Amino acid sequence: MPEQYTLQECTRMIEQQLQSLDIRSKQPSELYAPILYTLGTGGKRIRSAYSLLACNLFCNDPARAIMPATAIEVFHNYSLVHDDIMDKALLRRNKPTVHVKWSENAAILSGDAMFILACKLIMQSPPEVARQVMEIFFRTTLEVCEGQQLDMNFEARPWVSIPEYMDMIRQKTAVLLAAGLEIGAICGGADEGQAQVLYRLGINLGIAFQIQDDLLDVYGDPETFGKAIGGDILCNKKTFLMLTAFDKAGADGLYITDAMAKYYLHPQDKIDTITRIYDELDVRTDTEAEIRKYYGMAMAALNELNVPEDRKHVLLQAAEHMMHRDH
Amino acid sequence: MPEQYTLQECTRMIEQQLQSLDIRSKQPSELYAPILYTLGTGGKRIRSAYSLLACNLFCNDPARAIMPATAIEVFHNYSLVHDDIMDKALLRRNKPTVHVKWSENAAILSGDAMFILACKLIMQSPPEVARQVMEIFFRTTLEVCEGQQLDMNFEARPWVSIPEYMDMIRQKTAVLLAAGLEIGAICGGADEGQAQVLYRLGINLGIAFQIQDDLLDVYGDPETFGKAIGGDILCNKKTFLMLTAFDKAGADGLYITDAMAKYYLHPQDKIDTITRIYDELDVRTDTEAEIRKYYGMAMAALNELNVPEDRKHVLLQAAEHMMHRDH
Repeated sequence: MPEQYTLQECTRMIEQQLQSLDIRSKQPSELYAPILYTLGTGGKRIRSAYSLLACNLFCNDPARAIMPATAIEVFHNYSLVHDDIMDKALLRRNKPTVHVKWSENAAILSGDAMFILACKLIMQSPPEVARQVMEIFFRTTLEVCEGQQLDMNFEARPWVSIPEYMDMIRQKTAVLLAAGLEIGAICGGADEGQAQVLYRLGINLGIAFQIQDDLLDVYGDPETFGKAIGGDILCNKKTFLMLTAFDKAGADGLYITDAMAKYYLHPQDKIDTITRIYDELDVRTDTEAEIRKYYGMAMAALNELNVPEDRKHVLLQAAEHMMHRDH
Repeated sequence: MPEQYTLQECTRMIEQQLQSLDIRSKQPSELYAPILYTLGTGGKRIRSAYSLLACNLFCNDPARAIMPATAIEVFHNYSLVHDDIMDKALLRRNKPTVHVKWSENAAILSGDAMFILACKLIMQSPPEVARQVMEIFFRTTLEVCEGQQLDMNFEARPWVSIPEYMDMIRQKTAVLLAAGLEIGAICGGADEGQAQVLYRLGINLGIAFQIQDDLLDVYGDPETFGKAIGGDILCNKKTFLMLTAFDKAGADGLYITDAMAKYYLHPQDKIDTITRIYDELDVRTDTEAEIRKYYGMAMAALNELNVPEDRKHVLLQAAEHMMHRDH
């Protein structure tokens, strides 16, 4: 086996481990069919593959982290199933969501079972680090729940500050990527300090990624973005761009609220109107600067790692790849 | 501290441990308020208190099992929150269910967080048995999910056999009581064989309890049952009595289906009609015999335990108390 694994090889290892869960053969099939569907609908396995890469920074065998990495992948997909119910989302990865394809009850219960499957996987972490890994896992999964609650709270509020928003996306999105990296490092034999550096790398990369997601919703290439452009605008979602627009408009901000609340005959008109406001206020520049700032902090963390430069290179490439998905 | 704890003392220990989770102070409050409400609405803490009693059979300090026992209690309450959404239940312990008092989203997400809290507790089992306890816990919680799925499947089917029904209540109800007893025994230092005997005790007692619940829905004393009499009849729930009635009526069973499907001006008329059918077929006798059979098997398991008789006495008393709740 090669000492240095590529992102693709790590992704393939995760796919194989997911296959070997043998969900297809489990009973009752009504419980497991939605799980099979969810785990099969072609996610990019970013969090879990990164966890293996983090492990591979410190040891030659990334498979030492395969169980907790797969647990993180299963947990991530479980959180999407439940979030999609709460957000009333109809599509996920261009396919009907579980609660649409089956029912809300199926989505609740199959999600619950997925989390238990994730727990069974996390227990199979290398014995000498299992306890530490489980502590990180349960701390992090609870933070993700808290982040989802903050997101729902913010939807019901007229206004959210940018620091509050940053804290929400850190909890809802970044901590899981960060925990995957930290856990991978621990499984690979990293010391506490190095594992923390990887956690920090994950937090900053995760925040950069989420703000970029906000940006691409407005300025992305519909061919490569994977979602419809303007989706956040149509449902008045509070994004980094929206909150920055309000910030920059200051006391004049009411015209943005008006534009958001107005009735539009065609959805595209609303997208065009709000995009024009963003253009006028040049929120794109602020957003790109913020992405660069967090991405830069992630790269600074990468620099701090005491591992051979060629080992870092794969993680650097993976991060570059992740951030340039609109090209 | 006394060497032999009573059921009341064990229940109090669970209440104290639940208090010390300090849910009240956690943020965001929108996530934790439903958890505080659920854990505070006065359950009888049967599963967790039994777990402490099982521990106390083998050692003088039932507190050795306090963390996993509390995990089982939190898991049980989480499963009720999610089941109540799925069953569209309006009341639980005579109070509005979480999805009614808050929202379905709050019930989903707070439930999810409760399961993670249970995982954090189960991790704190005595270190030398933690791995074994966690394996039992995750195996059992998955079985409970599978049992809930079977229950939902059965609702959609015109007919369910009694063995299928028994298997469903074993999974949905009995395994958690059984796992609590097994885990308590393991924490108390029981060997594998004795822990298995306690598991078997729990399965049989759990099934006896559930069939008795079916019986009390029809023949219970409304003063002490805690739920409205006839609730299962009104929603055409498949219970041991209903399935036995169909079994005994044989080819003539269609008149029962008719009575179930008929429109009644007053709900009480439906309850009276179906109860009359049960009376005519004397399903009460069959049901009581079935309860005695399973209760007898539970007591046989108790007899097999290699512990002093006075230690068994408290568990025997607790089981008697649990089964005579209508007196």
